[in-house]
Amino acid sequence: MANTTVHDTIRAISWTDNRLQLLDQRRLPGEYTTLSYETVDEVADAIRDMVVRGAPAIGVTAAYGVVLAARAQFAKAGVRWASTIQADLDRLAQSRPTAVNLFWAIERMQALVSRLGHGNPEAALLAEAIAIHEEDVAANRRMGELGAALIESPCAVQTHCNTGSLATGGYGTALGVIRSAYAAGKISEVFADETRPWLQGARLTAWECVQDNIPVTLLADGAGAHLMKQGAVKWLIVGSDRIAANGDVANKIGTYHAAIAAKYHGVKLMVVAPTSTIDMAISSGDEIPIESRPDSEVLSMNGEPVAAAGAKAWNPSFDVTPAALVDAIVTERGVVLKPDREKMTELMNN
Amino acid sequence: MANTTVHDTIRAISWTDNRLQLLDQRRLPGEYTTLSYETVDEVADAIRDMVVRGAPAIGVTAAYGVVLAARAQFAKAGVRWASTIQADLDRLAQSRPTAVNLFWAIERMQALVSRLGHGNPEAALLAEAIAIHEEDVAANRRMGELGAALIESPCAVQTHCNTGSLATGGYGTALGVIRSAYAAGKISEVFADETRPWLQGARLTAWECVQDNIPVTLLADGAGAHLMKQGAVKWLIVGSDRIAANGDVANKIGTYHAAIAAKYHGVKLMVVAPTSTIDMAISSGDEIPIESRPDSEVLSMNGEPVAAAGAKAWNPSFDVTPAALVDAIVTERGVVLKPDREKMTELMNN
Repeated sequence: MANTTVHDTIRAISWTDNRLQLLDQRRLPGEYTTLSYETVDEVADAIRDMVVRGAPAIGVTAAYGVVLAARAQFAKAGVRWASTIQADLDRLAQSRPTAVNLFWAIERMQALVSRLGHGNPEAALLAEAIAIHEEDVAANRRMGELGAALIESPCAVQTHCNTGSLATGGYGTALGVIRSAYAAGKISEVFADETRPWLQGARLTAWECVQDNIPVTLLADGAGAHLMKQGAVKWLIVGSDRIAANGDVANKIGTYHAAIAAKYHGVKLMVVAPTSTIDMAISSGDEIPIESRPDSEVLSMNGEPVAAAGAKAWNPSFDVTPAALVDAIVTERGVVLKPDREKMTELMNN
Repeated sequence: MANTTVHDTIRAISWTDNRLQLLDQRRLPGEYTTLSYETVDEVADAIRDMVVRGAPAIGVTAAYGVVLAARAQFAKAGVRWASTIQADLDRLAQSRPTAVNLFWAIERMQALVSRLGHGNPEAALLAEAIAIHEEDVAANRRMGELGAALIESPCAVQTHCNTGSLATGGYGTALGVIRSAYAAGKISEVFADETRPWLQGARLTAWECVQDNIPVTLLADGAGAHLMKQGAVKWLIVGSDRIAANGDVANKIGTYHAAIAAKYHGVKLMVVAPTSTIDMAISSGDEIPIESRPDSEVLSMNGEPVAAAGAKAWNPSFDVTPAALVDAIVTERGVVLKPDREKMTELMNN
């Protein structure tokens, strides 16, 4: 296993001084600001407003949000805290609709809530949230190894959105594979789609790579096919917000577009996501709810309007890549090549 | 023929008060500013700096630039003006590399230069430049009719970059077809890619459509495939900067990406360009020089950095869509369906 120490220095989520601390990703790369949260409502707002984003990171954040909710409910309702906390869990669950890790983390915390007695629940719930956080980092390191092993010889890779330490408990999913593979000498160059409209690629992935000594080249999302035509890129490596039981993959808008271009050019598509991203309750990507974000994300930039007044925008935040376009789904439990319903079921039953 | 009067009110290039006037497209949609030009060097800079852009518009602008060059050379060199003007023509030709209309217009003006006598050439060259300008508008209106006729029933259409009055002598190529088809009731909705990095779609196409009463909806370039999957869009309609003898099409970066997604979804691709865009001297798109623009176009927005310091960018300004992905090339001389070398030769020999 290659040494990734110098390529892994960033953490966006921490529990410090008995409160949740989030790196404000809306302000990167211009400002490095950490915000503190002591109430579950603030945490739900932080998820909705994208102080924190990235499916696994949202899950970890929500878990800590449940700790804050329990603290407040125990202070207010005493031994009846477990019956009054439900509204808080619902509020967290309503913060964003697409990433299933959010619901997965809330359900795991809720399962503990229902097992706990009437006493102060904070310590037990905090231990569970920390476990979710640490397991996520460990899963990412494991996926980093498994994904890097799929890259046969040194090549350029392309990625979309941000899937790194900022998007997870730490290390990253797709960017975790890139960290591991770069450390192992398997990557000659990283190309990052800028990822409009929110520019996660330009603002976050480029920042992570620069911080962690991984050379990165940005491109406009529409330049992806022209890049693939040059022949250097062998893998398109992305994360996911929800994977259906048949292997269809919801991810940041633009992923499906890039996946079609990859198929056209013989570039392989690797999806890197922990099993908490896999939703066996839905049979295909058609059933995944796709969040619509405000028009203003497309019509303006850094708060300045870029489009003519009077123009509308269509701003879906995610799209669905059919399993047929996916060469590998990398999870902490193993790799699924050419995913389909049978292979996904086998992975999840293991 | 539908009445397009209310959908055609914009002109970006004019010859007024014995000088060239250009609408400064760098400042749209925030500011409507017209700049005046009296020297050919200023005109070459205006093309390079994208005060004016769009292949046909660059050609028209260069023709007027030759008039200014001839005026100055006649004032300086008198009867020897025709022998001293060559450096000016070269400078114009070096302003941008991809759009062949630039070279086409300069060659047409140069042919007249070589036919003129030793007297003051300004009036004759101005008449030729005005002819190039007026022929371009007439060609666009003709292409508007021909392209609209290809759209069988009312549907949504998608376009990329800006191909309207701002990109041409007036009316537009792809956006001219959209003007004509919208006036004829054949278009239910226009979707415009924002077209990073320069945002021609958001800044220019949206502005033109709002000015000219054509409802428009912007989307991030990466959202194109997800839009096509919804099923409403039946045609992707684009312009071109150069078409090779085999029907390969160079156009704004992102066109190739969109064309692959169109093919994948059964959306038809219409390329709208006057025959001055067709370069029979090159056999395929591989030979078309692709301009690289500065990294800063990707790394910043409205002059503000969006990416982390230390990140690089890859910023090709054009890509090439192979003829196999093109359903129709619409020119003022007629329509070529499923273009290939034989059909392109036939069109140009007509």
